[in-house]
Amino acid sequence: MIEGSKTDAMTRKLRMGMIGGGPGAFIGEVHRKAARMDGQVDIVGGAFDIDPAKSHEMGRILNLDPKRVYDSYEKLIEGELRLRAEERMDFVAVTTPNNWHYPIAKALLEAGFHVVCEKPMTMDVPEALALKDVVKKTKKVFALLHNYTGYPMVKHARWMVKQGMLGKIQKIVVEYPQDWLLKRLELEGQMQATWRTDPKQAGAGGCLGDIGTHAENLAHYITGLYIDELCADLTSFAKGRVLDDDVNVLLRYENGAKGVLHSSQISTGQENNLNIRVWGTEGAVQWWQENPNYLSFFRQGEPVQILRRGAGYLCDAAKRHTRIPSGHPEAFLEAFANIYQNAISTMRAAIAGNKATELECDFPDVDDGLIGMQFIETVVASNRSEKKWEKFHK
Amino acid sequence: MIEGSKTDAMTRKLRMGMIGGGPGAFIGEVHRKAARMDGQVDIVGGAFDIDPAKSHEMGRILNLDPKRVYDSYEKLIEGELRLRAEERMDFVAVTTPNNWHYPIAKALLEAGFHVVCEKPMTMDVPEALALKDVVKKTKKVFALLHNYTGYPMVKHARWMVKQGMLGKIQKIVVEYPQDWLLKRLELEGQMQATWRTDPKQAGAGGCLGDIGTHAENLAHYITGLYIDELCADLTSFAKGRVLDDDVNVLLRYENGAKGVLHSSQISTGQENNLNIRVWGTEGAVQWWQENPNYLSFFRQGEPVQILRRGAGYLCDAAKRHTRIPSGHPEAFLEAFANIYQNAISTMRAAIAGNKATELECDFPDVDDGLIGMQFIETVVASNRSEKKWEKFHK
Amino acid sequence: MIEGSKTDAMTRKLRMGMIGGGPGAFIGEVHRKAARMDGQVDIVGGAFDIDPAKSHEMGRILNLDPKRVYDSYEKLIEGELRLRAEERMDFVAVTTPNNWHYPIAKALLEAGFHVVCEKPMTMDVPEALALKDVVKKTKKVFALLHNYTGYPMVKHARWMVKQGMLGKIQKIVVEYPQDWLLKRLELEGQMQATWRTDPKQAGAGGCLGDIGTHAENLAHYITGLYIDELCADLTSFAKGRVLDDDVNVLLRYENGAKGVLHSSQISTGQENNLNIRVWGTEGAVQWWQENPNYLSFFRQGEPVQILRRGAGYLCDAAKRHTRIPSGHPEAFLEAFANIYQNAISTMRAAIAGNKATELECDFPDVDDGLIGMQFIETVVASNRSEKKWEKFHK
Amino acid sequence: MIEGSKTDAMTRKLRMGMIGGGPGAFIGEVHRKAARMDGQVDIVGGAFDIDPAKSHEMGRILNLDPKRVYDSYEKLIEGELRLRAEERMDFVAVTTPNNWHYPIAKALLEAGFHVVCEKPMTMDVPEALALKDVVKKTKKVFALLHNYTGYPMVKHARWMVKQGMLGKIQKIVVEYPQDWLLKRLELEGQMQATWRTDPKQAGAGGCLGDIGTHAENLAHYITGLYIDELCADLTSFAKGRVLDDDVNVLLRYENGAKGVLHSSQISTGQENNLNIRVWGTEGAVQWWQENPNYLSFFRQGEPVQILRRGAGYLCDAAKRHTRIPSGHPEAFLEAFANIYQNAISTMRAAIAGNKATELECDFPDVDDGLIGMQFIETVVASNRSEKKWEKFHK
Repeated sequence: MIEGSKTDAMTRKLRMGMIGGGPGAFIGEVHRKAARMDGQVDIVGGAFDIDPAKSHEMGRILNLDPKRVYDSYEKLIEGELRLRAEERMDFVAVTTPNNWHYPIAKALLEAGFHVVCEKPMTMDVPEALALKDVVKKTKKVFALLHNYTGYPMVKHARWMVKQGMLGKIQKIVVEYPQDWLLKRLELEGQMQATWRTDPKQAGAGGCLGDIGTHAENLAHYITGLYIDELCADLTSFAKGRVLDDDVNVLLRYENGAKGVLHSSQISTGQENNLNIRVWGTEGAVQWWQENPNYLSFFRQGEPVQILRRGAGYLCDAAKRHTRIPSGHPEAFLEAFANIYQNAISTMRAAIAGNKATELECDFPDVDDGLIGMQFIETVVASNRSEKKWEKFHK
Repeated sequence: MIEGSKTDAMTRKLRMGMIGGGPGAFIGEVHRKAARMDGQVDIVGGAFDIDPAKSHEMGRILNLDPKRVYDSYEKLIEGELRLRAEERMDFVAVTTPNNWHYPIAKALLEAGFHVVCEKPMTMDVPEALALKDVVKKTKKVFALLHNYTGYPMVKHARWMVKQGMLGKIQKIVVEYPQDWLLKRLELEGQMQATWRTDPKQAGAGGCLGDIGTHAENLAHYITGLYIDELCADLTSFAKGRVLDDDVNVLLRYENGAKGVLHSSQISTGQENNLNIRVWGTEGAVQWWQENPNYLSFFRQGEPVQILRRGAGYLCDAAKRHTRIPSGHPEAFLEAFANIYQNAISTMRAAIAGNKATELECDFPDVDDGLIGMQFIETVVASNRSEKKWEKFHK
Repeated sequence: MIEGSKTDAMTRKLRMGMIGGGPGAFIGEVHRKAARMDGQVDIVGGAFDIDPAKSHEMGRILNLDPKRVYDSYEKLIEGELRLRAEERMDFVAVTTPNNWHYPIAKALLEAGFHVVCEKPMTMDVPEALALKDVVKKTKKVFALLHNYTGYPMVKHARWMVKQGMLGKIQKIVVEYPQDWLLKRLELEGQMQATWRTDPKQAGAGGCLGDIGTHAENLAHYITGLYIDELCADLTSFAKGRVLDDDVNVLLRYENGAKGVLHSSQISTGQENNLNIRVWGTEGAVQWWQENPNYLSFFRQGEPVQILRRGAGYLCDAAKRHTRIPSGHPEAFLEAFANIYQNAISTMRAAIAGNKATELECDFPDVDDGLIGMQFIETVVASNRSEKKWEKFHK
Repeated sequence: MIEGSKTDAMTRKLRMGMIGGGPGAFIGEVHRKAARMDGQVDIVGGAFDIDPAKSHEMGRILNLDPKRVYDSYEKLIEGELRLRAEERMDFVAVTTPNNWHYPIAKALLEAGFHVVCEKPMTMDVPEALALKDVVKKTKKVFALLHNYTGYPMVKHARWMVKQGMLGKIQKIVVEYPQDWLLKRLELEGQMQATWRTDPKQAGAGGCLGDIGTHAENLAHYITGLYIDELCADLTSFAKGRVLDDDVNVLLRYENGAKGVLHSSQISTGQENNLNIRVWGTEGAVQWWQENPNYLSFFRQGEPVQILRRGAGYLCDAAKRHTRIPSGHPEAFLEAFANIYQNAISTMRAAIAGNKATELECDFPDVDDGLIGMQFIETVVASNRSEKKWEKFHK
C-alpha cells in the first residue's frame, strides 16, 4: 500500500529508524516494543550498532529490508535522503551511549528527521545549548526519553499540583536506589556497565547521569519547580570506579521549598526503586515506580486516599495515557510508549502542518534535556566545592 | 518484500486476522497490542464486528487494506482462501461474545487456520468436546486466552510446585473479586455488560464463566491438580439479573487437597483482584495479579521470601517470559503477549514442520477450554442440587 | 490503704483473681498484661494450675501473698468468701482449657464473682444455655475474650456498617489461617497443642473452636448479621489427629448476604492472619489483624480510603479504645485490654449500683458465647451431613 | 506485705515515682503503661505537674496515697528521703519539658535515686557532659527514653550488622516525617506544641530535638557507626515559628559510609513515619516503625526476606524483648516497656549488688544522651555555617 507523506500524516503508520539498539542492548529493545505498542509505527531500518556486522544481525532479527540496515548513522542519513519522501523514515530513535547523542541527534535534525533520543541528552551543557539551537532552527520534533513521566499516575500527580490540591509545595523527597553496580561489573565485560561507568562515554555523572537525572526530572515534572541551589555529596564506593555510584543532594527550590534527592547503584537489594513524595501545605502525594498504578494522596487529619489508574476520577492526561481498564495493571512499557505516543502525535501534526494540542505536547523535550545537563554540572560542581550551596547553573 | 509460507516460517512475521475486536471492544484491542508487542505479527485483516460498517471502520483505524476487511467470518474464510498461501492469514484471533466462539473456531480450523480464541471456549461441554475433536483432526494450533497463566511469576509458582518445593498440596484459596457489575450496567447499554449478562451470548455462567473460570484455570495451572467434587453457591445480587454475579465454591481435589474459590462482580471497590494462595506440607506460595511482579514463598519457621520478576534465581519459564530487567515492572499486556508468543512459536514450528519445545507449548489449549466448560457445568449443577457434593463432570 | 467495696467502686483498683495462667501458659500472661495496662486492677491471687505446685510457683513469680494462691478453683472460692468484702476478689479470669470453662464460670458466678472467661465459652450448646441462665440469675458481669473485637478499627468498621455507609451487606469473606499445627506438635508434648487437639479438653471443634469461632464472631460483630444456614467441610490433615485442623464454610446470612469463612492451622507460613472483607451495595471495608491500625474503605469509582487509628474522624468507640496518638502503633495487647477496660467499667457500675453506658457494655458476653457454641455445633453437623445446607442451630 | 530493699531486689516490685506526666500529658501516660506492663513496678508517688493542684489531681486519678503526691521535685526528694528504705521510691521517671531534665535528673541521682529520663537528655552539650559526670560519680542507673531501640526487630537488625551479615555499611537513609506541626498549633494553646516550639523549654532544636535525634539514635544503635561530619539545612516553614520544623542532613560516617537523615513536622499526612534503610556490601535491612513487627533483609540477586517478630530464627535480644507469639502484633508500648524492662533489670542488679548482663544493659544511657545533644549542636552549627561540612562536635 502506497502512503503519501503529508496528506495522510494523521492516519498512516509513521516510518521509524533507529541508531543503536543492537543485539543485547536493553533500552533499544524497549524503544521498539514501546513504539510498536499502539500500531502507529513501522520500524523500517536503522544503524543498530557501531559494528556493522551486528547492525545487520539486528536487521535480520527484525526481518528488515537489508537495504535499509546501515553501517553507520551517516550512511543512514545519506541512504534515507536518497529515498522518496513517501518511503523515507519519518523519525529516528537514538539509543546509543551518551557520547553519541549530540552528534547524531544534530545530524538527524539538520537532515530533516524528527528525533527521539535517550537521556542524558548530551555530554555537557554546551552541547545541550547547541542542540537546543538546532531544534529551534530546524523546527523538528525532539523527544527525550525521561520515560518515568509517561506513567499516568505521575501525570495525575502533576495535575493535582497544578490544581492547587497540594497548596504551596514545601518539601520534596525523591529517591532512586538500585544495586546493579554494587560489584565492578564493568570489569567483567558487561556491556551496559562498561559504557555507563566510563566518563568518555557516559559524561561527568555516573549514577548521577544515569538515574539521578530521572529523579530530578520527575520532581520537576510533577511540581513544576526549579532548583535554586543545591549541596551534593557524590561517592564512588566500588574501588577503582571513576564515576560516582552514589548521589546525595540537598535541594532548595526557587519557591522556598526544600528537597532531598538521593540515588545509588550500590544499594544492595534495590532494583529500580524510583519514588517521590511531595508535601504541600494542603496535601501531599506519593508515587512508587515499582508498583506504578497507584498514587497516594494525603491530607492532614483525613484518611489516606489511594488513587488507582484507570479510574473515572482521574484527569484527562491520566486517562489519555491509559490503555486497559483499572485492575489490569499497566507498567514500564506502557509509560515508555506514552512518550512515543505523544511525540508521534506531535510529529503527525508537524508533518500535516497542524498544531499539536497541549496534551499531545506532553513529552520531555530539549528544555528538559538542558535542565538535566545543568543539573549534572551543578551537582558535580557542588561535590567539588567547599562552600555549602551551589547556585543552579543556568 | 515477498514472504514464503514454509521455508521462512521461523523468522518472518506471521499474518494475523481477527474475528471481533471492533470499535470500543476491550479485549480485542488487548489482543492487538499483545500480538504486536514482540514484532512477530502483522495484523493483515479481519471481520471486526457483526455490523459490517463497524468492521470497516476498524479496518480504517488499523490502516488495513480494505480488501481484507470482511463483513463476516464466513466471508473472511472465503476471501483468505482465495489468496495465495504466501499472503493468506496464518492464524485468526476470535474475540467475539462467547456464543460465537465455537462455530467460528470450528470453521477456521477446518479451513486450515490456526486459531487464538477468547475464553470461555464454548457455550457448553458438548461444544467443547466437539471442538476438541476438530483440533485433533485438523492438527491446527488452538490457543485459549486464559491469559493470567502468562505471568512469569505464575510460571515460577508452577515450577516450584513441580519441583516439590511445596511438598504435598493441602489447601488452595483462589479469589477473583471485581465490582464492575454492582449496578445493572447492562440496562444502560454498556456493550460489555450487555452480552456478558445474557445467557444466550454468555452461556450458563455469568461471573462464573467470565472470571470464575480464570480462577479455576490459574489454580489448575499452578498446582496441576484436578477437582474431584465441589459444592457451589451462585447468586444474582443485582435485581433482575438472570446470570450469577457472585460465586462461592468449596473444592475437593483428587489428591485430597481442599480448596475455596470465590469470585464476584459485585464486590464494591474491587478492580481485578485475582489472587491465589497454595499451601503445601513443605511450603506455600501467594500471588496477586494487581501487583504481579512479586511471588511470596512461605516456609514454616522461616522468613517470608519475596521473589521478584527478572531475577536470576527464577526458572527458565519465568525467564523466557520476561522482557525487561527487574524493577522495571511488567504487567497485564506482557502476560497476554506471552500466550501469543508461545502460540506463535508453536505455529511457526507447525508451519515449518518442526516440533515445538515444551517451553513453547506452554499456553492454554483446547483441553484447558474443556475443563473450563466442565467446571461451569459442574458448578451450575451443584448450585441447583440439594446434595452437598457434585462430582466434577468429566 | 484500705478500700471500701461499693462507695469507691468507680475509682479504686479492682481486685482480680485467676483460674489458669500457670507457668508457660500463653493466654494467661496475656490476660495479666491486658488487665494491668490501664492501672485499674490489682492481681491479688489465683489458682493458676491444676498442679498446686505450679500454681504456687506462679504466685511467687507474681509476687503474691501466698495465702491467696490456691490449689484449686473450689478452694479459691472458699478462701475468698472467707475474706472481708473489702479484700475479696471483685472478679476472676478463667483461662483454663475449654472443658473447665463451664463448671468454673458457673461456680464463680454463683458465688458472687464477676467473671472474665476465655473462649470458646463451653464444651457444647447445652452448657452454653445453662451458663446463660446462670448469668441471668446471678446478674453478674460475664465477659468473653473474643478479643479481636477490641481493636479500635474493628469498632469503627462496625460503626460504619451501622451508619449505613456500606449500604446493604451482600458478601462477607472472613479468614483465619495459621500454621502452628502443621506438624503434630501434640505428640511432642507442647502444652498448647496437646489440649487444643484433644476433644475431651477442646470440645467438638479443633481449628474450628480455637480460631474459626473468632472469625465468625468478628463477622457478626462488624455486620450485626446472623447466619441462616451454612455448608461446611472440615479436614484433619495431620495424620492421626482427631479434631479438624482446617475449616472451609459457605455461609448464608438471614438478610440474604452470602459469605465464605475459612480458617486453618496447617497453612504453611501463616502466623495469625485473621482478616475480613465486607462488601455492601454502597461501600466495603477490609481489615487485617496483623497490621491492625488501618482500615480500608472502598466505594465504587472512588479512591480507596485508608483510615488510621488515632484520627479525629473516627467514631467515639474507636476513640475511646485508643491509648496513644496515631502513628504510634497499637496492637494485640491493647485490643485485649479494651475488652478488660469495658468489662471493668461495667463491673464498677454493677458494684456501685449504676448503669453502664452503651460504650462500656461493648464487650463479648454470654450471648456471643452461645452463638459461638451454636456455630461449632452447626458446622460439625454440616460436615457430617450429606445435605447441602444446615440450618443454624439456635 | 513488707518488702526489704536489697535481699528481695531481684523479685519484688520496684517502687517508681514520676516527675511530670500530669493530666493531659502524652508521654507521661505512656511511661506509666510501659512501666506497668510486666508487673514489675508499683507507681507509688510523684510530682506530676508544675501546678501542685494538677499534680494532686493526677494522684487521685492514679489512686495514690496523697502523702506521696508532691508539689515539686524538690519536695519529692525531701519527702522520699524521709521514708524508710523499704518504702522509698527505687527510681523516678522524668517526663517534663526538656529544660527541666537536667536539674531534676541531677538532683535525683545525687539523692540516690535511679533515673529514667525523657529525651533529649538536656538543653545543651555542657549540661549533658555535667550529667555524665553525675552518673559516673553516683553510679546510679540512668536510662534515656530513645524508645525506638526497644523494638525487637530493631534489635535484630543491630545483631545482623554485628554478625557481619550486611558486610561493610556503605549507606544509611533514616527518615522521620510527621505533620502535627503543619499549622501553628502552639498559638492555639495545645500543650505539647507550646513547649516543643519554645527554645526556652525545648532547646536549640525543634523538630531536630524532638524527632531528629530519634532518627540519629536509631541509625547509631543499629549500625554502631559514629558521624564524622555533616551538612544540614533547617527550616521553619510555619510563619513566625522560631525553631525548625523541618530537618535535612547529609551525613558522613567515620567508616566512610554516607547517609541522609531527614525529618519533618510539616509533612502533610504523615503520622509517625520513622523508618530506616541500611545498605552494606553484603546485605541491607529496612525497618518501618508504623508496622514494626517486620524487618526486610536484602541480598543482591536473592529474594527479599521478610523477618517476622516472634520467630525462632531471631537473635536472643529480639526474643527477650517479645511478649506474645508471632502474628499477634506488638507495637509502641511494648517497645517502650522494653527500655523499662532492661533498666529495671539493671536497677535490680544494682540494688542487689550484682552485675547486670549485656542483654539487660541494652538500653539508651547517658552516653547516648550526650551524642544526641552533640548531634543537635552540630546540626544547628552546620545550618548556620557557609562551609559545607561541619565536624561532629565531640
